[in-house]
Amino acid sequence: MSLQSPFISTAKPFLRALRGETIIPPPLWLMRQAGRYLPEYRQVRARVHSFLELCYSPELAAEVTLQPIRRYGFDAAILFSDILVVPDALGQPVTFHEGRGPTLERLKNKADVTRLSLEKFISSLAPVYKTVQFLAQTLSPTVALIGFAGAPWTVAAYMIEGGGSKDFAHAKLWSLGQGPMEQLMELLTEATIRHLLAQIAAGAEAVQVFDSWAGVLPENEFLQFVVNPTKKIVERIHKTYPTIPIIAFPRGAGIQYKIFVKETGVQAVSLDSSVPLMWAAKYLQPYATIQGNLDPIALFAGGNNMLKRVQRIIDVLSHGPFVFNLGHGIVPETPLEHVAELVKYIRLCGVR
Amino acid sequence: MSLQSPFISTAKPFLRALRGETIIPPPLWLMRQAGRYLPEYRQVRARVHSFLELCYSPELAAEVTLQPIRRYGFDAAILFSDILVVPDALGQPVTFHEGRGPTLERLKNKADVTRLSLEKFISSLAPVYKTVQFLAQTLSPTVALIGFAGAPWTVAAYMIEGGGSKDFAHAKLWSLGQGPMEQLMELLTEATIRHLLAQIAAGAEAVQVFDSWAGVLPENEFLQFVVNPTKKIVERIHKTYPTIPIIAFPRGAGIQYKIFVKETGVQAVSLDSSVPLMWAAKYLQPYATIQGNLDPIALFAGGNNMLKRVQRIIDVLSHGPFVFNLGHGIVPETPLEHVAELVKYIRLCGVR
Repeated sequence: MSLQSPFISTAKPFLRALRGETIIPPPLWLMRQAGRYLPEYRQVRARVHSFLELCYSPELAAEVTLQPIRRYGFDAAILFSDILVVPDALGQPVTFHEGRGPTLERLKNKADVTRLSLEKFISSLAPVYKTVQFLAQTLSPTVALIGFAGAPWTVAAYMIEGGGSKDFAHAKLWSLGQGPMEQLMELLTEATIRHLLAQIAAGAEAVQVFDSWAGVLPENEFLQFVVNPTKKIVERIHKTYPTIPIIAFPRGAGIQYKIFVKETGVQAVSLDSSVPLMWAAKYLQPYATIQGNLDPIALFAGGNNMLKRVQRIIDVLSHGPFVFNLGHGIVPETPLEHVAELVKYIRLCGVR
Repeated sequence: MSLQSPFISTAKPFLRALRGETIIPPPLWLMRQAGRYLPEYRQVRARVHSFLELCYSPELAAEVTLQPIRRYGFDAAILFSDILVVPDALGQPVTFHEGRGPTLERLKNKADVTRLSLEKFISSLAPVYKTVQFLAQTLSPTVALIGFAGAPWTVAAYMIEGGGSKDFAHAKLWSLGQGPMEQLMELLTEATIRHLLAQIAAGAEAVQVFDSWAGVLPENEFLQFVVNPTKKIVERIHKTYPTIPIIAFPRGAGIQYKIFVKETGVQAVSLDSSVPLMWAAKYLQPYATIQGNLDPIALFAGGNNMLKRVQRIIDVLSHGPFVFNLGHGIVPETPLEHVAELVKYIRLCGVR
């Protein structure tokens, strides 16, 4: 852990928190902070034909990445992209439908998996790395740049189900041996590593791995398809970039958050809104920086009830390394003034 | 805890397990064991116009309750009904659509809640209690009869959302004070208690309270709207029937399963498939009988992979009070022979 990446400025509070410092007021960003709740985002979105076109247009993607930083002064900017650019670049095309979620032609067998290829993977994603490069040159010296990817299990679930799912029956059948799961997970773990390494090479100062469907797996499959691939990703990234902090978000992991943090070696863990705070302070914070976990619906609601919940999160978690965030992505209907109120409140924390 | 209900036969293994006995092989039933995966169920269903008509026809409801007992010899029969008969009987009509889930005209304000009434509640549900009575007289002396209700939070969520939901935004807004949540929860807690008491009076020997959406709530709201109402329900039922065991299923409670078991006083807790087994054995089983938690998709998959998972559940949980079950309802596409295989395997447990 001795090499220092050229992109890291230790002045950035977000990166200091990820390295284990306790910082008050805590650094702050919000999942899906660049998105539909912002009128300036909707304007840019209207100029392109599809959501993926926006992800693959470096200037526009950089612009929407920066919008929430300009408006609210968050401590970190997260690359505007999507976890499903990975299957797209592996040769399984993805279509996004406004308000309905993504669809893919679902993987059905070994031949479908074998058809996927890493050959043009990095070159297909070149526009994404160009966006990162542009952002790294543009961001102010106090704002950190986060790259990201979906975790292999969550991306596999979308690829096997052909989109979102209620019970993940197909993906779970593969996880139970009724499908070429090992082959797919190996491919996705390698793709995820290359995708994250390329983002770091282009200037990302930290990366987040989103495992949105981690919580649907039983214990054994959680260890096999959530913990193990994340551990591999962390090891491989730290081999090349030992000081790049890795945040993981195994959403819904519940009791398994504990083994996840201990086994994977991540520097920070993002908590969904259901995780009790004292438990997180006691069992997770000694091992990793905590990020989270205001319910996005509390932000949507706003007012004193929101602020009471924000205060409790800060009271319990700001005695150790901590980054304020939501427990899930911001909802598109969130009033702008509620976000402003949240930011103002947190910025005054410790000053009161 | 001295009064003995006239309906309890201590010979029933399921009831003995709920009272804290360790029984090998463990007693066994499956959530949604009466349902669409059974051809004999689909035949009865085809004879009525709607799902609710089936729930309100004592002879037919009793018939479908008994079907899985006849076919597989489960240790408990659960009344065939639905958690949404409660809003229906309170004056908020419910419609069921095959394969799409239920819809209700959603509650929007205080006037909508005030319009609901307990006045005709018990009389509207008379057919349900008649079904229970009929079942109590019909069941063999080794099979226990389970009554059930939805927990107030889960039923409230359906009533406020007007059906299922992805993010429970409306219900959560009410839980954050933007709606007459206290009034609704008070009404539903009272309705749930009366509904369960009436089922016990008619012959139910144990009851299960289903809190399917417990897992979407943050800590504070979990205590307020999941733990507290369940505690009240347990107290009131035990005031009249001190020896009737109560099973609760706060699905997705994660870390909060622990406080839930300690605070509510339930005799048994049903675990979803994500709960790690050793954790449950260590932190929950000393306080309550464990029920669960095979992933329904593993049952759907069948074969050795299913049996390996079944064996692990038995290995870890059968050293204390335990009832074998799924972690969620059986899926309609489940092959009949997989259920037969599961039952056969469990019946031989401890005999091998």
